[in-house]
Amino acid sequence: MASGSADCVFCKIIAGDIPCHRVFENDHLLAFLDIAPLARGHTVVIPKAHAERLDQLDPEVVAEIGRRLGRIGRRVVSATAAEGYNVLQNNGSVAGQVVPHVHFHIIPRRSGDGLGYRWNAKSVAQDELAALATRINEAA
Amino acid sequence: MASGSADCVFCKIIAGDIPCHRVFENDHLLAFLDIAPLARGHTVVIPKAHAERLDQLDPEVVAEIGRRLGRIGRRVVSATAAEGYNVLQNNGSVAGQVVPHVHFHIIPRRSGDGLGYRWNAKSVAQDELAALATRINEAA
Repeated sequence: MASGSADCVFCKIIAGDIPCHRVFENDHLLAFLDIAPLARGHTVVIPKAHAERLDQLDPEVVAEIGRRLGRIGRRVVSATAAEGYNVLQNNGSVAGQVVPHVHFHIIPRRSGDGLGYRWNAKSVAQDELAALATRINEAA
Repeated sequence: MASGSADCVFCKIIAGDIPCHRVFENDHLLAFLDIAPLARGHTVVIPKAHAERLDQLDPEVVAEIGRRLGRIGRRVVSATAAEGYNVLQNNGSVAGQVVPHVHFHIIPRRSGDGLGYRWNAKSVAQDELAALATRINEAA
């Protein structure tokens, strides 16, 4: 498998060397149930091409994931009778990424499930935001 | 604006009626700094077409967001010297969605920042996963 990484558990799942509970597959991506779910129906969507971070992946492959994400989310929510869902994609161990192969989590949500992102917003001055936006616009 | 929603704060930003600190824009999407950031560089990426949930959006528009997401993430991380980033997209108030217009958060991450998703994984039987995968595969 040209794009696979020998040590990568997700590449092994893609190759069929490790089984999974598949919910969607095409030439470019695979979606399967997380075996250690945060909620019933917790699904992982991965590109078949190996890349560690989103920004290292061919943008057309991310486009293909985007193209399929909503429909997979709707089917997961429908099958589990959830009330909503989070889409989460972590880049770097500091961001909670455990498997170093790009993956999008689809996490079905229900009232009182205790899940969600730790939201601790800060206030920031408008001129600071303006300076930062300029800096990002100039970044490579 | 044919696709706009009169009461939607993000549609007003897109229309230019509310200012924003823009970091990327094209015909289909707009990315700007969150004014109540979780971290320095916290960016929101939105489609110009109004839809509340990801699964209600034209899949080709989600594809276009996917196509741009990695590069925006890399520029945000580069400009803020972050160590990684989360991509988060919430569907439904139960999932933490506040503005009912699809948006992807790009949240730069650093060690000890106290951010991240509440991870509380459950163990689940293989046969239960198999039954659920079948159910999702059959869902509309």
